[in-house]
This record gives sequence, structure tokens and C-alpha cells, in this order.
Amino acid sequence: MAHIYIYSPSGAVRDKQAFKRGIQRLTKLGHSVEVDADALASSTRFAGDDATRMAAIHRAASSGADVALISRGGYGLTRILPGIDYKKVAKAVQKGTRFVGLSDFTAFQSALLAKTGGQSWAGPALGEDFGQEQPDDIMEACFDDMLSGQGEGAGWRLSAICTEALSHKREGVWAQDAVLWGGNLSVLVGLLGTPYFPQIKGGVLFLEDISEHPYRIERMLTQLLHVGVLAKQKAVVLGQFTQYKLTPHDRGFKLQSVVDWLRAQTKTPVLTDLPFGHVQTKVCLPVGKKVSLVVEDREALILWAHEAHS
Amino acid sequence: MAHIYIYSPSGAVRDKQAFKRGIQRLTKLGHSVEVDADALASSTRFAGDDATRMAAIHRAASSGADVALISRGGYGLTRILPGIDYKKVAKAVQKGTRFVGLSDFTAFQSALLAKTGGQSWAGPALGEDFGQEQPDDIMEACFDDMLSGQGEGAGWRLSAICTEALSHKREGVWAQDAVLWGGNLSVLVGLLGTPYFPQIKGGVLFLEDISEHPYRIERMLTQLLHVGVLAKQKAVVLGQFTQYKLTPHDRGFKLQSVVDWLRAQTKTPVLTDLPFGHVQTKVCLPVGKKVSLVVEDREALILWAHEAHS
Repeated sequence: MAHIYIYSPSGAVRDKQAFKRGIQRLTKLGHSVEVDADALASSTRFAGDDATRMAAIHRAASSGADVALISRGGYGLTRILPGIDYKKVAKAVQKGTRFVGLSDFTAFQSALLAKTGGQSWAGPALGEDFGQEQPDDIMEACFDDMLSGQGEGAGWRLSAICTEALSHKREGVWAQDAVLWGGNLSVLVGLLGTPYFPQIKGGVLFLEDISEHPYRIERMLTQLLHVGVLAKQKAVVLGQFTQYKLTPHDRGFKLQSVVDWLRAQTKTPVLTDLPFGHVQTKVCLPVGKKVSLVVEDREALILWAHEAHS
Repeated sequence: MAHIYIYSPSGAVRDKQAFKRGIQRLTKLGHSVEVDADALASSTRFAGDDATRMAAIHRAASSGADVALISRGGYGLTRILPGIDYKKVAKAVQKGTRFVGLSDFTAFQSALLAKTGGQSWAGPALGEDFGQEQPDDIMEACFDDMLSGQGEGAGWRLSAICTEALSHKREGVWAQDAVLWGGNLSVLVGLLGTPYFPQIKGGVLFLEDISEHPYRIERMLTQLLHVGVLAKQKAVVLGQFTQYKLTPHDRGFKLQSVVDWLRAQTKTPVLTDLPFGHVQTKVCLPVGKKVSLVVEDREALILWAHEAHS
């Protein structure tokens, strides 16, 4: 089916069993899996030192693979952003290599978009997704759609609270020819002010995060608000924000408080419930691609053109 | 001695005993303590809703007090930054009111500096410092120096590692007429790209944080690096980074790894060990004031003019 290149641009692979299971799963699905020579390298918390991880990215770009898939996220891309050869990566993208990943990978995806306009895919990682004992059906189906180029979009059901909050807006097409961008909120906001933050107007910005208390999520969203990024977008789409802990001192302050507050601060519609983030059920989203955003009743759809038509 | 105005611009006061003890301590030291009407207000995790906290700041500015001291930090200033009357605060500063605080207060101090050039003091909070059973001697002495206007600077001993790392630099005056700025790293970096981030060239940037893993500290410092902020400073002075937890997966990656890496990325000297942060022993630092930075052997000094001379 597809030639999939596995490499490690961020954290060192600790769960070697999940890594193996992921490769077995992809192989079983009929793919030809190629593993980068340093995919299991380790230097303190990183998958090899900075030069090693940069070289792995460049090898992925030279691999001619259909998909360059990260082994895992973690932390490590932000500090090597100045050393990446974005033109080389963009050329690989044009030749058909889809760079896929999430979390720390947001830094790479954003930088590629900012520097070259190059597209990539927000989607699964090897270990944490394909390496599960039972990989998620929807995740695999979306990955398959991406591979075949037949995927036309991602749809999900909005919560009743979200539908109610947006009930004053007319249903239908909310965005057209809008660049889809975003990813992990902490990683993206960590690029603000740098040459690696994409300058997107009229876009659809999607965001997710893990282990961030709602007050921190709010502080980051407030930064995007005060910078003027939110006002420039057609819509903000919030994915899954998981694994944080509320405390008694929060006294009712919670993620929904943040969403409510944000909606009061910006005219840009804020959608929720996108099945993307540090969760098993995740869609694949084309970062840097032009999309439409359609809302009908409680259904939201991010639509893009077939690859053959784009 | 001094008229001290206590108010709550950030998180709700939860430790009422510490709040009381702080007032008693300041009173015992001979000060006249005035408590804002909403100092103990509470709205979810905040010390009152946004309008309440903004009004408290403006009352502090109108109080004519010698010191406007925050009850505590927490989170809450970032989201009300657009509503603060900075001219009013700057006028109060010119008339002699010193705004003192830390942590979340960094947002206010940075915004005041960015909007008006107004000075404030990085220093203690009421509850967490004066509210201790045994307030720290050095903290109280520095607070006293600030009050009397007789303070001329803050000195500290550099660690052997820091001294060694900077041994190639000539001793003596490293900065002169350099604007001192900074505070809490997370809060400051959370202002990047907004109108509230000070644009300081040739300054001395001091930073501290709490409960941030070294990889997150590194990601934030990397952002300041990639934005170009570090290259524009005469020196970066790291204070105390406390209450984070390393994990087995860090495999030796630690705070010192971050400092070492940063030093390899920038020509700007990076000093450590400043006694400021979420620790009991803390100096008072004039944010927005011109200072000199002097290093002699293992002693570092941040010096500023007597208030009478400035």
C-alpha cells in the first residue's frame, strides 16, 4: 500500500513495545515500513542530540516515502527550528511525502507553513496511536483516507452547549478557501513573535492540549487574542483538552468557563468538540491546506478538496 | 513609617490567616496599612470578577499610598490588561506610590512599562511573604531599603558553575544605564507579540518561575531567543526556578542543562542565582529603572541610583 518512514524528531522513544506494535500494525495493514537509523536514539530526554534529530528530519525528507510519521511527540523540535532545511522538506511534500504527527510536531508544521507555505498533516503518532493494543478504528480510517487522497473532510457533532452558544449565527458555510492551521496550543503559542509562527489571515485555527490547567489554556488563548490572531481567523476550533486537574481553589472555574469567556471577547466563532488531540479517536487534518467550514444544526464539517483536484 | 495599600488584582485570597498575619506584621513594623474594600473578594478562582479587580487597581492608584502591595499572585491580570488605566497608574507612580509584587503581577508591571515607561518593584506579596510565621530577614530589609529610597542595589553570590561559565568575560561593569525588566518567565512570555510586552534594548532581563519543568523553561527561553529578545539585552539574570519535578525519562536533563544550552545559543551573558522568585529570601528590584550590572569574582551586583538622585 504505502511506504511509511518512521523517525524521531522530538522525545526519545521510551515505550519500545508500543514502537514495535506500531510497526507491526502498519505492516499488517499492508504498508511498507522503513525505520530511520536513529529512530530509537536517546540523549537525555531527546531522541538523540540536536544534530541527530535534524539529520533524521532531513533523511525523512529524502526518503521518498508516502508518509513520514513521527514515532512520538514529547519535546525537542522548538530548539532545532533554526537548523531545519525547510526548502528540502517542502520539496519532499511537493513530491508527495505527507509529514504526519501532532503535539511537539506542531512546531515543525507551523515553521514549515510559515517558511514555505508547505502543507503537512495533523494526525497520529506511531507509538501512541498505531502502537496501542487496539488502535482506534476512526483514527485508522482517517489515516487511510489521507493516504488514498480520497479524504474530503472531517466531521463531528457539536455539544449542546456549543450549539446553543452559536445559535445566533446562521447555519451553512462559515469559511471558504480558509487556510487550516494550528495544533498543540502550548507549542503554537511558544512560537509567537518568532519567524516560525504562521501569519494566517482568514484561516481556521484548530487547537488542542494536554496536562494544561484551564487557567493556563485561558492565558494562552488570551495571548492569541491580544496579539490579534483570533480576530483575523474565520473560526477557532477547539479540539480535546485532556489530563488536567482542577483544584478546590478553582471554585467552579473550568474549561467551559474559559470557552465562555473567550466567546465574550471575540467575534470570531469558537467551535468545540473537534476529535483531535491527545486522545485515541483522532481525525487527520491537512495543515496549511485551504478548507471550508460548514455548520448544519449540530454537525460541523471541515472540508477540503480531493488531492487530485487540489 | 509608610502608608501601605493592600489590594488583590489576581487570585482570590484563600489563606486568610496569612493575610491577617501579613497585615499584623506590617503594622508591627510601624506601617499604616490600608486594606482595599475588595481585597478578600472571590469569584471562582479570582479575587472578584474582572471589573472588581480592575477597580481595585485603580483605587490603589488613587490611594496616595507609599506602597501598593498585592495580597498574593495566582492568575488574573493577563485577561484584564486591556482595561487598566495605565496613565492613572503612571501618575500615581510619579507621585511616589511604589507598586510592589511578583509572579502574576509581572503582567501588570510589564504592561505598565510597555505602555508608559512607568516603574514598579518586583518584590514580596503580603500573604506569601509578610504573612509567614517568620518573615524572611533579607526580604524585610530589602523592602525597607526600597521604602526609604536608600537602597542602592541588590548583590548576590554566583555559583561556582556560573562563575566558571563566565570566566572568559572580563570582570567589572557589564551594563550601565540598562533598563531592568522581567519577572515571572511564564507570565512574561505569555505577553510576547501583544502590546503589553516591553520593547527593551540594552536592558538587564531577570527571570524566575515556579512549577515549570526545565524542558518548559527551555521552551520559553528558546522563544525569547528566537524572537530576538535575548540578543538585545546586556545580560540575562536567572533567579530561582522552584517546585518542578524531574522524571526518570529526563535521564539527566535538568535545569543546568537548560542554562548550559542557552549559553551556547547566545552571546548575551546568562547569570544565575539571583535571590528572587517563589522563595522566602527575595530582594526588591526596580522594574523599568536604569541599572548597572557589576560582576567581581563571584559577586554580582545590580545597582541603581538613590531615589533622590534619579
